[in-house]
Amino acid sequence: MEPGDAARLGPGWAARALPPRLLLMLLLGRGLRGAAAASSYGAAAEDSSAMEELATEKEAEESHRQDSVSLLTFILLLTLTILTIWLFKHRRVRFLHETGLAMIYGLIVGVILRYGTTATSGHDKSLSCTQEDRAFSTLLVNVSGKFFEYTLKGEISPGKVNSVEQNDMLRKVTFDPEVFFNILLPPIIFHAGYSLKKRHFFRNLGSILAYAFLGTAVSCFIIGNLMYGVVKLMKIVGQLSDKFYYTDCLFFGAIISATDPVTVLAIFNELHADVDLYALLFGESVLNDAVAIVLSSSIVAYQPAGLNTHAFDAAAFFKSVGIFLGIFSGSFTMGAVTGVVTALVTKFTKLHCFPLLETALFFLMSWSTFLLAEACGFTGVVAVLFCGITQAHYTYNNLSVESRSRTKQLFEVLHFLAENFIFSYMGLALFTFQKHVFSPVFIIGAFVAIFLGRAAHIYPLSFFLNLGRRHKIGWNFQHMMMFSGLRGAMAFALAIRDTASYARQMMFTTTLLIVFFTVWIIGGGTTPMLSWLNIRVGVDPDQDPPPNNDSFQVLQGDGSDSARGNRTKQESAWLFRLWYSFDHNYLKPILTHSGPPLTTTLPAWCGLLAQCLTSPQVYENQEPLREEDSDFILTEGDLTLTFGDSTVTANGSSGSHTASMSLEGGRRMKSSSEEVLERDLGMGDQKVSSRGTRLVFPLEDNVRLPAQSPE
Amino acid sequence: MEPGDAARLGPGWAARALPPRLLLMLLLGRGLRGAAAASSYGAAAEDSSAMEELATEKEAEESHRQDSVSLLTFILLLTLTILTIWLFKHRRVRFLHETGLAMIYGLIVGVILRYGTTATSGHDKSLSCTQEDRAFSTLLVNVSGKFFEYTLKGEISPGKVNSVEQNDMLRKVTFDPEVFFNILLPPIIFHAGYSLKKRHFFRNLGSILAYAFLGTAVSCFIIGNLMYGVVKLMKIVGQLSDKFYYTDCLFFGAIISATDPVTVLAIFNELHADVDLYALLFGESVLNDAVAIVLSSSIVAYQPAGLNTHAFDAAAFFKSVGIFLGIFSGSFTMGAVTGVVTALVTKFTKLHCFPLLETALFFLMSWSTFLLAEACGFTGVVAVLFCGITQAHYTYNNLSVESRSRTKQLFEVLHFLAENFIFSYMGLALFTFQKHVFSPVFIIGAFVAIFLGRAAHIYPLSFFLNLGRRHKIGWNFQHMMMFSGLRGAMAFALAIRDTASYARQMMFTTTLLIVFFTVWIIGGGTTPMLSWLNIRVGVDPDQDPPPNNDSFQVLQGDGSDSARGNRTKQESAWLFRLWYSFDHNYLKPILTHSGPPLTTTLPAWCGLLAQCLTSPQVYENQEPLREEDSDFILTEGDLTLTFGDSTVTANGSSGSHTASMSLEGGRRMKSSSEEVLERDLGMGDQKVSSRGTRLVFPLEDNVRLPAQSPE
Repeated sequence: MEPGDAARLGPGWAARALPPRLLLMLLLGRGLRGAAAASSYGAAAEDSSAMEELATEKEAEESHRQDSVSLLTFILLLTLTILTIWLFKHRRVRFLHETGLAMIYGLIVGVILRYGTTATSGHDKSLSCTQEDRAFSTLLVNVSGKFFEYTLKGEISPGKVNSVEQNDMLRKVTFDPEVFFNILLPPIIFHAGYSLKKRHFFRNLGSILAYAFLGTAVSCFIIGNLMYGVVKLMKIVGQLSDKFYYTDCLFFGAIISATDPVTVLAIFNELHADVDLYALLFGESVLNDAVAIVLSSSIVAYQPAGLNTHAFDAAAFFKSVGIFLGIFSGSFTMGAVTGVVTALVTKFTKLHCFPLLETALFFLMSWSTFLLAEACGFTGVVAVLFCGITQAHYTYNNLSVESRSRTKQLFEVLHFLAENFIFSYMGLALFTFQKHVFSPVFIIGAFVAIFLGRAAHIYPLSFFLNLGRRHKIGWNFQHMMMFSGLRGAMAFALAIRDTASYARQMMFTTTLLIVFFTVWIIGGGTTPMLSWLNIRVGVDPDQDPPPNNDSFQVLQGDGSDSARGNRTKQESAWLFRLWYSFDHNYLKPILTHSGPPLTTTLPAWCGLLAQCLTSPQVYENQEPLREEDSDFILTEGDLTLTFGDSTVTANGSSGSHTASMSLEGGRRMKSSSEEVLERDLGMGDQKVSSRGTRLVFPLEDNVRLPAQSPE
Repeated sequence: MEPGDAARLGPGWAARALPPRLLLMLLLGRGLRGAAAASSYGAAAEDSSAMEELATEKEAEESHRQDSVSLLTFILLLTLTILTIWLFKHRRVRFLHETGLAMIYGLIVGVILRYGTTATSGHDKSLSCTQEDRAFSTLLVNVSGKFFEYTLKGEISPGKVNSVEQNDMLRKVTFDPEVFFNILLPPIIFHAGYSLKKRHFFRNLGSILAYAFLGTAVSCFIIGNLMYGVVKLMKIVGQLSDKFYYTDCLFFGAIISATDPVTVLAIFNELHADVDLYALLFGESVLNDAVAIVLSSSIVAYQPAGLNTHAFDAAAFFKSVGIFLGIFSGSFTMGAVTGVVTALVTKFTKLHCFPLLETALFFLMSWSTFLLAEACGFTGVVAVLFCGITQAHYTYNNLSVESRSRTKQLFEVLHFLAENFIFSYMGLALFTFQKHVFSPVFIIGAFVAIFLGRAAHIYPLSFFLNLGRRHKIGWNFQHMMMFSGLRGAMAFALAIRDTASYARQMMFTTTLLIVFFTVWIIGGGTTPMLSWLNIRVGVDPDQDPPPNNDSFQVLQGDGSDSARGNRTKQESAWLFRLWYSFDHNYLKPILTHSGPPLTTTLPAWCGLLAQCLTSPQVYENQEPLREEDSDFILTEGDLTLTFGDSTVTANGSSGSHTASMSLEGGRRMKSSSEEVLERDLGMGDQKVSSRGTRLVFPLEDNVRLPAQSPE
């Protein structure tokens, strides 16, 4: 290349001086190198005719313009969605959620793009060049003595070779599937973890874990097997034109098991529906996303020794299980570790004087989780989820007030944009995606299968959980959970990742239709369903449900006091108690400024270490009164109430009093001494019991306390 | 491709289940398709040997891991920078700014990567395949009957063909230059526009425009010509090994004329240095970035008819000038239009009840500016700047209080991350960029040239501006401006865009060194320089400088009152007055909730339209007391003070009193009635003059008022 040729690039260079190639590439992910390429080409082709150069430049310009226009299309779609959402919120319309709306607008634009635009010939010039034995990821091509580097974009199915030069606009709006996994999902998932309402989440942790792990696995296998039946049927009827293995069916079961009740939860939030139901639904949907991802990779990894994928191979099966456990625990660890590191950094530096730095650090550390997990071969999205939970549980306590709202708001905006983007893309994809395989039998079968799968997931599991729960999961709750089995962004992202084979294309189309149907119908039906099922609304989410909550009590029956005590013991099971006391006594004091001083909880011989790790604030307010901690105090208060059930009900307000006290503490934060004073003066009679609650869970008291409570 | 093969992808698929390919591609921009490619390949190559498949998979995994690691490197760098910045701020260290720090860390990591890592062989398999006449942007390659699509990545200079398989890590950390233009610069530039301190900016608008446009052009031509001399000298000495045209020199002049006094301004902010100096420096640097971008594209577009680029071609020159004007005004219009549209949308909807929606809309509209400008062939970065200014001036007024802080904080974080990213990349690039051309003569020449260019830019222009300014730009200010000619992100981004030719590579290396030198030395020297030049610090940025400001007065000489009145008239020149009254009477009322009702300012015959456009709030508080408006009230107060100079100085505090009143209004906002009461009671004697200020600028009064003031 000769010097000075840039100066001879011609006016075209100036006109497209700053092409947003990468911004676009980031989102469109394909065909965007064209502009860059043609530009380089224009620079290089000095010896070729000026006409040709001009043509290439025009082409590049045109392509660049189209890229901008297609991205603009999405932005305008989102803008339109936002304005309509506002109108809906303004008029309190609840039958259509913003995500449903985004899909509708996407659909409309998709129809316009599909049928309204002329099929312009592609700008990409294609050249067939036969290679010998394998595809390389990079090609060096020699053009009249100049070398050009090409990168592999992917395989083209033989039938599509001639349609590569198809409608440009349609191709432009079809994104690289990895965008969904690597750009759009992480903020959504992180936000889910970060905005988890911890108090209710942890109180229902056991049930949530059961629903998310067992339930998703059950649902996956049931759907997989049912779909295998459907596929067999299709083969008999002659509706199946290509292979469809059992593993494909299981894979479909895995991707479609990721529920995403975003519309239901939005309505719950708006109507302040029951917090426990909210926690169950939200917790389950957050965790089952992670389970579904890992499950689907494990199923793909299931590879029997022979080529007959129908045969069951124990070794391969256990390998898959091993992979599942490995990826899941690895990703979990990654997320937790970066969360803990962030907590330590924010605790031991005085970064909270500079909210901007703090927010930036928080953002970077959370992002690094994703990369770290990917670098170690784990799953970034799952790691990001647990990182979000850890950040909310520990780091959030150490942040300055400004950073707390900054980080919340930052991720809220990212989440909002990413989510609506995905949903409007889904609407668009129905018409612009070019590899749809519509199979009515499969689709109907899938709808039946997800219904049955959800039923087999919720009802039996709820039955078993109710054996151990004090607050039973009522029938109305179970029906609501059954009803709320929407499929959303995660199922879509998993389905679009690989649409190479016939089976996968059929799955993708079906998933898309399931998402549409569930979001529109269930989203619209939530409000009627809530009132039909008699689920109480208008609950203050920070308020504890009253001990005599109807929806619980009615279906719970009248257990005797001893039976209650028994259940109580079961709810606050050893795992949770162990975890709670460990967290409260060691983790919280080490990682945050709250909790009891380590010097009192750690054995004497690590006194120096304990002193180093305990922050001075802890001594000042031994009663942890910080905002986030109130979550746990509440849990504590709640559990005290649970333990001292028979005694507390005598003087009535004791339990709720403790709760509201802690709430006040969380809200006022600064007036901790005032708080203590108030307590000492006004609630002298409760002092002993309230001190008692602090000691409910130290490990050594585990055995004694339940025995004491009935006295 | 056969169905079910995904199931046979092997455990490797699971292990790298969610590669952050695109997140990485977004930032690394090259070589990242490898993983995807190999993955597709793995799926396709069923018939090839299992060994080979496994090898490809391993390769892909390795490459993917390296991508993650290299991005992690940057994140850790930024994290480290943040922590050190905190330490510096904590200990009030001012000799090194965060950007300087980011560069140092980048430099260290660059050295480690360069000399510490072994040159692993690249994972990219290359294949030379000779094509006939031109490079296409897409290649279809036929491998044993399967078709693969390849995209053009760019040309490789002949010397580098064999070094493509070089140290992978070094390649990985070398980003696609367009990343800087399309991902990192827009938030930086938008933030600059959005956070502009409008009051001082508009007061110094004339000077700022002069510095930014004339100054940058002067600086560009002087540097270009000096460098041409240097290049000639190098040719004589024999230091030049390739061609270096006059247009290249001018191009260098353009890119290096974009000043970026980020470190100086940070220190100004911290020390609360003089607000006018701040406004001059900040305004100039913001606008000259835009000028430099457009200037450099225009110079590239300068293409004389013949091939002899030395010859001056009038037609080509005027074409370049036309392109400059066209791109600049086009981009300006784009930015302003989207800003205005956003203002209208936020004014006429009640979106401010939903801050999340509002923030999302704001973000999307601002981003669409960039795309819109690019789609129309203008410059996105420049459009984004003017969009930011418009948004701050109009839209900001319509936002809810929460959205105001949200948008500010969102862009602040983005700006912070992007800026530090660029600077740490610069540090890294010094060692990892593989096409450096170090030419001592050129580098020394460039340092001399930018010094002379800056001098020729500041001193003569200041002299001419002082002829027309009441508040003279004192010598100390001029020296400070001369001193603050740092080069930063913009110069770097412009230099790295095209490093194909020898001349460009030399420019890039030189630019990098200039950035290093100026950021470190000038950044460290700002505080001593400020005290040495006697520039007052500790000024409340919201406070007007006192009329008897020493640094002004001392150097201003003792002008008589009449001379002062004369200057006054010149400062508030017709252009500004015209703009101000138009903005205050028409634009503000149409686009925001403040300003006088349109029904009073528009002619009677458009009464209905005026009524529709005027928001009801305006009638309630005819005195615009909203936060942002206080900026203009202050300007107004200031100008009143200016007009009534000889009279006001008699009773002393009048002017500053008006100013502080407006400030109070800006801060309290809600207590407007209280305000009015206070004014009516306590300052009855000033009521007339204070009413007078409201009427200083209506168009019809333009002529009469200055004549009235001396009385």
